Amino acid sequence: MFSHVKELQYNAKPERPDPVYAKKLQEILGGQYGEMTVMMQYLFQGWNCKAEGKYKDMILDIGTEEIAHVEMIATMIAQLLDGAPAHDQEQGAKDPAVEAVLGGMNPQHVIVNGLGAQPNDASGYPWNARYTIASGNLLADFRANLNAESQGRLQVVRLYEMTTDPGVRDMLSFLIARDKMHQNQWMAAIEELVKSQGAVVPSTFNPEFEKQEVAYSFMNFSEGEESSTGRWVNGKALDGVGTFNYVQNPGAGQVPFLKVPPNYTHGTPPTNGVNPMQ
Amino acid sequence: MFSHVKELQYNAKPERPDPVYAKKLQEILGGQYGEMTVMMQYLFQGWNCKAEGKYKDMILDIGTEEIAHVEMIATMIAQLLDGAPAHDQEQGAKDPAVEAVLGGMNPQHVIVNGLGAQPNDASGYPWNARYTIASGNLLADFRANLNAESQGRLQVVRLYEMTTDPGVRDMLSFLIARDKMHQNQWMAAIEELVKSQGAVVPSTFNPEFEKQEVAYSFMNFSEGEESSTGRWVNGKALDGVGTFNYVQNPGAGQVPFLKVPPNYTHGTPPTNGVNPMQ
Amino acid sequence: MFSHVKELQYNAKPERPDPVYAKKLQEILGGQYGEMTVMMQYLFQGWNCKAEGKYKDMILDIGTEEIAHVEMIATMIAQLLDGAPAHDQEQGAKDPAVEAVLGGMNPQHVIVNGLGAQPNDASGYPWNARYTIASGNLLADFRANLNAESQGRLQVVRLYEMTTDPGVRDMLSFLIARDKMHQNQWMAAIEELVKSQGAVVPSTFNPEFEKQEVAYSFMNFSEGEESSTGRWVNGKALDGVGTFNYVQNPGAGQVPFLKVPPNYTHGTPPTNGVNPMQ
Amino acid sequence: MFSHVKELQYNAKPERPDPVYAKKLQEILGGQYGEMTVMMQYLFQGWNCKAEGKYKDMILDIGTEEIAHVEMIATMIAQLLDGAPAHDQEQGAKDPAVEAVLGGMNPQHVIVNGLGAQPNDASGYPWNARYTIASGNLLADFRANLNAESQGRLQVVRLYEMTTDPGVRDMLSFLIARDKMHQNQWMAAIEELVKSQGAVVPSTFNPEFEKQEVAYSFMNFSEGEESSTGRWVNGKALDGVGTFNYVQNPGAGQVPFLKVPPNYTHGTPPTNGVNPMQ
Amino acid sequence: MFSHVKELQYNAKPERPDPVYAKKLQEILGGQYGEMTVMMQYLFQGWNCKAEGKYKDMILDIGTEEIAHVEMIATMIAQLLDGAPAHDQEQGAKDPAVEAVLGGMNPQHVIVNGLGAQPNDASGYPWNARYTIASGNLLADFRANLNAESQGRLQVVRLYEMTTDPGVRDMLSFLIARDKMHQNQWMAAIEELVKSQGAVVPSTFNPEFEKQEVAYSFMNFSEGEESSTGRWVNGKALDGVGTFNYVQNPGAGQVPFLKVPPNYTHGTPPTNGVNPMQ
Amino acid sequence: MFSHVKELQYNAKPERPDPVYAKKLQEILGGQYGEMTVMMQYLFQGWNCKAEGKYKDMILDIGTEEIAHVEMIATMIAQLLDGAPAHDQEQGAKDPAVEAVLGGMNPQHVIVNGLGAQPNDASGYPWNARYTIASGNLLADFRANLNAESQGRLQVVRLYEMTTDPGVRDMLSFLIARDKMHQNQWMAAIEELVKSQGAVVPSTFNPEFEKQEVAYSFMNFSEGEESSTGRWVNGKALDGVGTFNYVQNPGAGQVPFLKVPPNYTHGTPPTNGVNPMQ
Repeated sequence: MFSHVKELQYNAKPERPDPVYAKKLQEILGGQYGEMTVMMQYLFQGWNCKAEGKYKDMILDIGTEEIAHVEMIATMIAQLLDGAPAHDQEQGAKDPAVEAVLGGMNPQHVIVNGLGAQPNDASGYPWNARYTIASGNLLADFRANLNAESQGRLQVVRLYEMTTDPGVRDMLSFLIARDKMHQNQWMAAIEELVKSQGAVVPSTFNPEFEKQEVAYSFMNFSEGEESSTGRWVNGKALDGVGTFNYVQNPGAGQVPFLKVPPNYTHGTPPTNGVNPMQ
Repeated sequence: MFSHVKELQYNAKPERPDPVYAKKLQEILGGQYGEMTVMMQYLFQGWNCKAEGKYKDMILDIGTEEIAHVEMIATMIAQLLDGAPAHDQEQGAKDPAVEAVLGGMNPQHVIVNGLGAQPNDASGYPWNARYTIASGNLLADFRANLNAESQGRLQVVRLYEMTTDPGVRDMLSFLIARDKMHQNQWMAAIEELVKSQGAVVPSTFNPEFEKQEVAYSFMNFSEGEESSTGRWVNGKALDGVGTFNYVQNPGAGQVPFLKVPPNYTHGTPPTNGVNPMQ
Repeated sequence: MFSHVKELQYNAKPERPDPVYAKKLQEILGGQYGEMTVMMQYLFQGWNCKAEGKYKDMILDIGTEEIAHVEMIATMIAQLLDGAPAHDQEQGAKDPAVEAVLGGMNPQHVIVNGLGAQPNDASGYPWNARYTIASGNLLADFRANLNAESQGRLQVVRLYEMTTDPGVRDMLSFLIARDKMHQNQWMAAIEELVKSQGAVVPSTFNPEFEKQEVAYSFMNFSEGEESSTGRWVNGKALDGVGTFNYVQNPGAGQVPFLKVPPNYTHGTPPTNGVNPMQ
Repeated sequence: MFSHVKELQYNAKPERPDPVYAKKLQEILGGQYGEMTVMMQYLFQGWNCKAEGKYKDMILDIGTEEIAHVEMIATMIAQLLDGAPAHDQEQGAKDPAVEAVLGGMNPQHVIVNGLGAQPNDASGYPWNARYTIASGNLLADFRANLNAESQGRLQVVRLYEMTTDPGVRDMLSFLIARDKMHQNQWMAAIEELVKSQGAVVPSTFNPEFEKQEVAYSFMNFSEGEESSTGRWVNGKALDGVGTFNYVQNPGAGQVPFLKVPPNYTHGTPPTNGVNPMQ
Repeated sequence: MFSHVKELQYNAKPERPDPVYAKKLQEILGGQYGEMTVMMQYLFQGWNCKAEGKYKDMILDIGTEEIAHVEMIATMIAQLLDGAPAHDQEQGAKDPAVEAVLGGMNPQHVIVNGLGAQPNDASGYPWNARYTIASGNLLADFRANLNAESQGRLQVVRLYEMTTDPGVRDMLSFLIARDKMHQNQWMAAIEELVKSQGAVVPSTFNPEFEKQEVAYSFMNFSEGEESSTGRWVNGKALDGVGTFNYVQNPGAGQVPFLKVPPNYTHGTPPTNGVNPMQ
Repeated sequence: MFSHVKELQYNAKPERPDPVYAKKLQEILGGQYGEMTVMMQYLFQGWNCKAEGKYKDMILDIGTEEIAHVEMIATMIAQLLDGAPAHDQEQGAKDPAVEAVLGGMNPQHVIVNGLGAQPNDASGYPWNARYTIASGNLLADFRANLNAESQGRLQVVRLYEMTTDPGVRDMLSFLIARDKMHQNQWMAAIEELVKSQGAVVPSTFNPEFEKQEVAYSFMNFSEGEESSTGRWVNGKALDGVGTFNYVQNPGAGQVPFLKVPPNYTHGTPPTNGVNPMQ
């Protein structure tokens, strides 16, 4: 169960409106790696969590924080849209500066949302739940979370570079710091799980049943062997068990063979020159 | 540029058809973390790669391998669908076993694909490109890749448990081994990048411009403090720079305030009892 | 800003697992009119709200409650999935009852979510943000909300009929009551707004600029005139301004005419018998 | 069965081309609340209608009219795109006015559609069927319809403000009037149904089986009680049965508890420090 | 402008309900190649048509017919859903036949649509506008139409094989005949256009500006040369201009080279061992 | 199984960056008829192919070539994005030319992809698998392929007109030639199949079971008879079997009748003035 207080988690007040930037800022609200993604991902991971209580509590703490991040960015966008030049100018007296703003805006911000934020990304594409994962395996999911916070912080940093508004930058500097913490947090939680379970997901599959011969081999599927010089082909594998090796010319398996399909599928008939029906 | 050989990378031949299992197997072909995802993700990361040559080559090696994994699973599905009971049975003589198969199949396998594989997941939902990321930052993307291989191997292992067919299990045991290698590979590549860049993405943002006060704080947004006992609140942060701390009652920022919208948006008018138009 | 307590808003405990029903219950979690829809719709309407404070507070109260409804249903689904028969049975010893369960389940509940809830509907289709609206006009949006609560309660009632599990029914009886309240709530809020603004959205458009001749006419576009006997063609219009009338044979406007497209679009060339290029 | 006449329902002829506006106008053609939505929603409601004949006839009358609205807007867009500046200008001689037009256009109007309309919204997002509902309960669906006409008219009015072209405004003034009629029409039909069925959807669920204690309570889930001053917490509920009350501190239900998942799901193993496999 | 008559174009009455088949039949209603696709595709092609009047008239004739096909199939599905076993059975007394039906049904047919048709495919995936094309080039579009009618008839034929209900088969036999006519119709229209324009789309591009060296070459990108024996590598090309040839080892072009990205993108920094920020 | 060489299939090097054009070029990379579509469509058709070996080999040859086309366009886009003006300019000193570029760019090219290509179309809409078909019937699928190459070449030609950059035009002239070859190729393969199977898909359905009366009739569903003058209503049908005829006033079938739905669906109750519950 949740409750709401009227204060934002931090400040979200631009110095001046900027409807073109509002369109861009949508990316970290409703985009693939925006705050809606981490909010819903963490909440579902928390609600589905079957592991120790400290994990469930931790995941729901951060999930609850992310709702507040969505709130801050939505609030910021609504203010950036203030005074958007939505009216048409007279033919022959068009101001290129105004036209450029109109060209760079998302017209749905006016038509659909009346100068409010929308749960979409910077292309106007709606947020969808396939951006999230709750797999029931925390090590797998914490890697998803570390990735989401890494992509997310990268995008916030890029958006920081794209504005000079002190109010916007103030809010972004807060999000950039929180995303650093959240990267550290998931790295810490991963470290803890790897210690007890090992580094490969899932740790519980019996290795006898996997094809051991190819479990530590880097396979070269291209001309040139630059790929043979990295850590991923030299030394002990990161799971602490196997040793990397490099396969220059990987072998092959079966040649596939598919049966002729049954008549009721009306697939391509044998092409022996006889028209089957006429 | 690419070329094709007729052999599969490994074997893909079931002992007997199983159209219900064919539906399930679609998840690792066209699902969120199926082989199409890693194939397209790695290819785009490789084509966009602006870093050292060994990374581009390595990424395209594995991307090229993943095309072969898609090929194997598609081939397997087409064979699992052989002899699917697509015909209706006479009313009054329905065989429950046949009906159960019909209920568990994806009817599109017959109607749309004529007993062939489709680029969809186990719910029939089509693969889409938002499953992938190529951000231009390799550390961020390698975390995406490690996550994809972790979720992917977890799903393959679950599918292994859901069949007893030796041919299917043989192919899956190959994929399970490759996914272990690929987890190890991305862990190794991450280790290499973290050594030179540090652990936080992006490493190039000037920390003076981020809100340092909250950059290492775990914030408790719920009743109960189980979340205070993990590695993520104790000791040095994983980036080797800051130190974790726990904030029991996180502070708050501004109360948001939005201006009345301009007339041309026709938003809610002031509700002072006067009907504005009539 | 939000905070979380560990108690659910109400009970969510089934008497026994039922993985087939878990699939169905997804509809009111992640479907078009599920709890995620009202949760996100109300939160965005609240965050974007530029009207009087009591509206913003009211909308965020109910938006915050809806997060708790998502939590309850997710929790219920995770329990309904307990003990799902995911293992394959031996060929020749298949139990029809087990097979029927397998056929009726969503296989992603095992493969993707490890027996947890997913943010999707009963077909496995992911929730997306186009299910929601925050238009900046509260009367319009409250009608969206009343519709959502009406469709939502209808679906919950149908799901109530589809189970006999006392624990599931207990939770649903709570949601059914809340959805009744929420329908009443939006009707009350609509009544209040209609009193001050009038019943037509938006109320602020100058009626002189609309085509008055057709503003109260029901137009008959079909054979048969059963449609002439309803309230919608008899008496005063519901906005209290015009009077309904019935148009048996609606008139028509222009015949459309489109110019030949410019060459650079390479549309269909004039078909005068001359092959334009060869 | 349907038939077509060559006249549009009304005029659809702009005074001059305006490809930037053409992009915006797509919203009311193929957007969430565009004419395709009401067209398909009404047609499916009509085809599925199991109630009295006058409802089926009425719904199909308006559904048939909406096809003509789609036709008018598509025709308008095709004309607005005439003469779009699709050609590239020489480097160094770029005209800012032309560039602004190019920036504000949807490039797919040229590349994909050869200066024709597309069944998408103002962001280029394709129309999809989840925008519609046909629930089998007319009161629920008429509320969906009233919402659609309210959101739709709001969007048309905003688009009216965004152009000064007399031909475009002429067509929009027709649509604005029809949308007023359609709001009135659905309000009238709702009034009729509420009289016979009551105001809560569905009316046929036995109230004994719902949790009466919370069926008329407004629950306060936030700091501050501005929400206690509206019609929704004062007086008789709008269904004419209960009485509203305000709950300042809503109670809570169970603390959720989930079982450890079975081994075959390979979820997170107990974290007791023992690596389970190696 | 359109009008509606109450008769269907043909009969649509099943002998008995069959809710499992109703799910399958959705494919040709709201699927990729269902009737909604051809309906919307032809209507948009007709509305956008800038060619001779006979084409516009012909396209809108068939587009209008397709609305009637959607109507017939929707009506059929609503009847097939009659009496669907939606109620839960008592634990311990489950009838396998009923369970199989429940497993094979789309639960949304009850929960969302109250036993009515939905605008979705056989997987419950909603129809979307990207299934259609109106390119402004009739030869291109008529090929899209011929494909749609070919895929569509194939699916209807497969569905014919999947039922023995005489009423369903009667309706399908009508659709199968119409789809044959429509294939013939588009072939005839293509023949006409190819005569005047040539066979390659678009015919208006100056061949001097295309890379003539590769305009008639089949390129072998795989081991094995079975592909060298078809019509596509032997003789005159179908456009009547060039001559096919077979390239056993296709040459290659540039090796790609991408510049290091600018700092403001925060891409991967040079990996020279120096951590750039710390 | 596949392998990669470092050379592109042809050149892909622009003379200068043009981030606005990069957005447009996305259409033929990740759009409905972009190279990803033909790549995935041909690969799945090839993997599922159950016909003669020469078809499988031919389809996989061209599918493999298309991967190289995706690679070329992605590489081109990454270079067109070089030096994109992502930084904000100081208020009051905005350069209209820079603003126009910013307005015409896809902001995700910076924020999400760090100046790399994305698997989306010119509106930023992600590629999805419903753009492809592999039906199991080669004649149907080759028509899909001919359509895809026709739409694709049309789009490439339009993009050729929209740039003057010699490097971009060089690459496009290659693709335009290949798309001509591929149209010729599919026409040739279709000719071959039609010779053996006949022209109607599927050829294997017994014509006795289709409604012969309407199998060669063009039906006029609109005022005006311009549609009676084309090839499609005059002479022998293209399948060489029937003869076209024109039906001026097509007849009609049943009037649909739907039963009152069962109580458990809680649809609209009989509207006899009695409120059913209260």
